[in-house]
Amino acid sequence: MTPSTKKDPSGLPVKDRLLATAARLFESQGYAATGINQIIAESKTAKASFYDHFSSKELLGREYLAQYGRKHLALLQMMMRRSAHPQEFIAAWVRLIKRQNRSGVFYGCPMANLRAQVGTGSPVLAGAIAELAAETIDAISGYLRQFYRARAGTPKHSRGVARRIFHVYEGGVHVWRLTGDDAALDDIEPLCLAILDRDCC
Amino acid sequence: MTPSTKKDPSGLPVKDRLLATAARLFESQGYAATGINQIIAESKTAKASFYDHFSSKELLGREYLAQYGRKHLALLQMMMRRSAHPQEFIAAWVRLIKRQNRSGVFYGCPMANLRAQVGTGSPVLAGAIAELAAETIDAISGYLRQFYRARAGTPKHSRGVARRIFHVYEGGVHVWRLTGDDAALDDIEPLCLAILDRDCC
Repeated sequence: MTPSTKKDPSGLPVKDRLLATAARLFESQGYAATGINQIIAESKTAKASFYDHFSSKELLGREYLAQYGRKHLALLQMMMRRSAHPQEFIAAWVRLIKRQNRSGVFYGCPMANLRAQVGTGSPVLAGAIAELAAETIDAISGYLRQFYRARAGTPKHSRGVARRIFHVYEGGVHVWRLTGDDAALDDIEPLCLAILDRDCC
Repeated sequence: MTPSTKKDPSGLPVKDRLLATAARLFESQGYAATGINQIIAESKTAKASFYDHFSSKELLGREYLAQYGRKHLALLQMMMRRSAHPQEFIAAWVRLIKRQNRSGVFYGCPMANLRAQVGTGSPVLAGAIAELAAETIDAISGYLRQFYRARAGTPKHSRGVARRIFHVYEGGVHVWRLTGDDAALDDIEPLCLAILDRDCC
């Protein structure tokens, strides 16, 4: 296929087109299974333009992850802002996951999927993923701390509780992806509520 | 590198050498990132011998998964046989995970890692992974059912409880892999015990 430099009907700048195509392919067929040439062909850009923006697939992977991370954290923050109680936040998060699942373009946790694919081969990407996972836990922890402070009197280890909530989210999306059974997504909410309710661990 | 047909010092048959090398590379650097040529070179076999045993990487992947599955289910069954109470089984399972982690060759859940790497590209492998995940849940469920029956009087939904225990296992190993924080492995036991204790969900 001859790379084309023609403007895409979407009107998106080249870099955004490359990133959008990369995101779609990384999430559906996988990061490791996606080659630069396929991204160039499917985003209708020229090879030279690709290298103007990204000197390697690894750097494209980093930018994809950073873009995903910004959206993911903004979504979490929005759901937390709108939730007066952690239980509401969990319910909203689970609704979002189920909506993504029904849309047919849900492939589980993009962070974890990417992590599985870089193995020992990319400490740079593994490090960026670890940072984003820690930021996710920190965001939940900050929200819980604020909530507990406002109520006072209930000392909880908000970071540990946040880590276990993230644990239950990861477990649910992985069991769902492994088995294809939607019941795994239904388990997320009661397991998180049990953690919040009785600070069980 | 010239492929060699010489016997390996290990004395293993060619097929076992190929499978052992594939397992090591699939788990450390990833399935998608491992090419047939690297497996042939590192297992010191000839290209023709590879194709005598496996007509494609996907079929090698299936056999690797089947071999992993047999070992994994046998280990679970052994731990369950030795555990008079589900709490003992959970404790033994967590000890095993932590021992693997300390050994420095733990990369998380091989099933989930493989699943993330085949994306939409291999329905055959995705199907085999779904079967193995279901067998894992069934094995735990069978053990729980036996335990509950022996005690009678405590009606529990053993398959749902088993699925949630698997959920917590998957969540723990993924949060560990994402963050590198061993505390995620420490969370597995109390979260599983909470599920068993209060049949919380």
